[in-house]
Amino acid sequence: MLKSISDFQLSLSRRRFSPPAVLATVYAVFILLGAIVLRLPFSNTGDVTFEDALFTAASAVTVTGLIVVDTGSDYTLIGQIVIALLIQIGGLGLMTFAALLLSMLGMQFGLPQRLVLRDELGQTSLRDLGQLVRLVIIVALICEAIGTAFLMTVFVPEFGWTHGFWQALFHAISAFNNAGFSLFSDSLVGYVGDPIVNITITVLFMIGGLGFVVLADLYQKRRWQTLSLHSKLMLSGSLVLIVWGWVMVAALEWNNPGTLGALDSTGDRLLASWFQAVTPRTAGFNTLDYAQMETSTTLMTITMMLVGGGPSSTAGGIKVTTLIVLCLATLAFFRREDRLTIFGRSLGIEEIIKVLALTSLSLFLVLMGLFIASLTYTGDFLDLLFEVTSAFGTVGLSRGATGELDSVGRAIIMVIMFVGRLGPLTLGFFLAQKSKARVKYPDGKVFLG
Amino acid sequence: MLKSISDFQLSLSRRRFSPPAVLATVYAVFILLGAIVLRLPFSNTGDVTFEDALFTAASAVTVTGLIVVDTGSDYTLIGQIVIALLIQIGGLGLMTFAALLLSMLGMQFGLPQRLVLRDELGQTSLRDLGQLVRLVIIVALICEAIGTAFLMTVFVPEFGWTHGFWQALFHAISAFNNAGFSLFSDSLVGYVGDPIVNITITVLFMIGGLGFVVLADLYQKRRWQTLSLHSKLMLSGSLVLIVWGWVMVAALEWNNPGTLGALDSTGDRLLASWFQAVTPRTAGFNTLDYAQMETSTTLMTITMMLVGGGPSSTAGGIKVTTLIVLCLATLAFFRREDRLTIFGRSLGIEEIIKVLALTSLSLFLVLMGLFIASLTYTGDFLDLLFEVTSAFGTVGLSRGATGELDSVGRAIIMVIMFVGRLGPLTLGFFLAQKSKARVKYPDGKVFLG
Ligand SMILES: [K+]
Ligand SMILES: [K+]
Repeated sequence: MLKSISDFQLSLSRRRFSPPAVLATVYAVFILLGAIVLRLPFSNTGDVTFEDALFTAASAVTVTGLIVVDTGSDYTLIGQIVIALLIQIGGLGLMTFAALLLSMLGMQFGLPQRLVLRDELGQTSLRDLGQLVRLVIIVALICEAIGTAFLMTVFVPEFGWTHGFWQALFHAISAFNNAGFSLFSDSLVGYVGDPIVNITITVLFMIGGLGFVVLADLYQKRRWQTLSLHSKLMLSGSLVLIVWGWVMVAALEWNNPGTLGALDSTGDRLLASWFQAVTPRTAGFNTLDYAQMETSTTLMTITMMLVGGGPSSTAGGIKVTTLIVLCLATLAFFRREDRLTIFGRSLGIEEIIKVLALTSLSLFLVLMGLFIASLTYTGDFLDLLFEVTSAFGTVGLSRGATGELDSVGRAIIMVIMFVGRLGPLTLGFFLAQKSKARVKYPDGKVFLG
Repeated sequence: MLKSISDFQLSLSRRRFSPPAVLATVYAVFILLGAIVLRLPFSNTGDVTFEDALFTAASAVTVTGLIVVDTGSDYTLIGQIVIALLIQIGGLGLMTFAALLLSMLGMQFGLPQRLVLRDELGQTSLRDLGQLVRLVIIVALICEAIGTAFLMTVFVPEFGWTHGFWQALFHAISAFNNAGFSLFSDSLVGYVGDPIVNITITVLFMIGGLGFVVLADLYQKRRWQTLSLHSKLMLSGSLVLIVWGWVMVAALEWNNPGTLGALDSTGDRLLASWFQAVTPRTAGFNTLDYAQMETSTTLMTITMMLVGGGPSSTAGGIKVTTLIVLCLATLAFFRREDRLTIFGRSLGIEEIIKVLALTSLSLFLVLMGLFIASLTYTGDFLDLLFEVTSAFGTVGLSRGATGELDSVGRAIIMVIMFVGRLGPLTLGFFLAQKSKARVKYPDGKVFLG
């Protein structure tokens, strides 16, 4: 066995397969397999074409949540289970499947997630991959189990034990993995005032969106002072974005009769504002109708979808840490410094080049997607922009444009979901491999993609 | 005299007035004075409010060209002359007035334009500011005189000697300074097939948009190999953007009955494509109706307006050189290099931080402008996006949204024009002052804003 893996690795390196290419291939294969299974008669209720199934599988594996058919009514229970599995594979795959694959390729020491973990966890015992993989899976399963239990208190009384359990489990999996898929055709709009659903779902997707690195760090250190630079940045950055989003959504939508204005109590409006403030950074569930939102709120949501969550998490986008470095660079420029410093650590030219590359590529990707989709799209431009950024951030929120797109437009959205999910990760591999080779910059490291 | 300047300088430094603040104040004073004169009865035909006059003056001084009243019919000849003067002051001011002001402040050696010129012109005799100022003014006047002569061959037969001469002179001044103001209510749509107007106007605004640094370099060196890095980047970058824009406008609009499709001959369509390919990078004239353009072409135009022309020119936007560094950083990242190299020169961390800061600030500015304007704007989002980027790039092209904006929206557009014009320059001052203090990075310098 060991020998055959080593042979495999050798043949791979001879053929110059890069790890990102291998990973992209694995994702593509999962999507294709998922599409085939979802297209089979027992998976859907009859109205799902292969193109629809392919879109669903791509959306599930990339944990985006944009849909072209209704998950709850157009797929059977088997189809829904397949979707939940694809979500779980896609969401955890980022950490575990990549780790496993790379370990098979003999890249234990070049493996970025591991380097990163070992560095961030501060020389703990997490030195073998198996342990890392186990930790990730255990955290995910525990969170999903607790989430399912909470959601069952709402769904079981409403749908009975069997259906209620499945509703709870599906939404817990979808939430923890930030997939945004819902079995309700209007996402969670029906539960806009339900505190248990609102809090359970948001806590699940916020934990999943922080990233395992931060979770492990929090679990082991528990005190702010001892946390790694990366964790501090992620936690403080997320807090700022959440508070800002909460205040803004409430202020902008308070009297909009299509959204908050339709809710009677102040509590419900604050709860709905909270939900819509935290969902754009990658979760993709909604309890308000985004198509009814003001242009200003839509624009703010678009910027939050572009930012996304944390690296090494189930989130997409350019990532919170990238945004922070962009802000730091701007500050450093005005202070006439040539190093970026934060929380007493400094960032070198590598991080800065990485941020430039990531931001440029991301903007280019979004622009190209918009441009190609606009060639045949005739609807509202803001809706299309919303949809494309939603795909890039693997968010899954929609103002309805995805349903109006033709085959070319849908293909574009699929490609953007795919690259949005893999791209930053792929960039991460490049950086990690370089970090290993050079030790000139032992300063604070922030993962940017 | 020398003593009083020195006293002035001293009192300025005591009060901590920074040069960018002084420059911004000077621009604001010009705008206010212009608005007052344009509001006076002899300047307009009666329908111009002070708000309109302020917008016109801001648009003229920032050489943008967005309008809320019709320049040709709502302003008298005197008003039009005032506008032409504001354009000339605003356009050349970037180089000359700033230089004069800073020399008064005793900042000869910290003056970025001069440092930059001395560096780029390769130790030529251009060592005193007076000479630089004279060169700039002479080049401008010669170009405008030649342009006026060419345009008179079209306008004099049509409008007679007096009116034809004024039409020719106004459009020559507006074109060289990339102001985009026209005395015709539909800009140059009436001359869409006229080769003399098309070529004269585009050549004028392309020369103005390259920047005096490049022009002086070209004039003195004449051979590609001996040109400075900055000139090479500007010329090759501009060429790529122009060819790309030409091909894309032609391809996307060829059969659009609202634009190219309305023209009979292939020659006219190619001429109109050429014009619309070169105008978005800051000129602001148009021979086709942008409101009739396809979404895809509009999107491409928006990206070109964001990029703009060259630093130290009459152009706005993030600048061609900034775009090139963004592309280089992306390439460097994938090649795992920590220095950016082009044409055998390398760029250090200073340039990279500057590009990050410039790009972040620019995107932030455009987003904030969009956001605030969207609070009261009810029209099409794409039109608003077009207008805001047009203001940021001081381009002046319009799909009609500026006319629909309320007072708040117009104020936003004014602020964006102002910052779009001053911002990158202001950033330039910061960098230049730092460059002087440190000599660790004597590598190739590219001006990025
Ligand atoms: K999602
Ligand atoms: K202009």
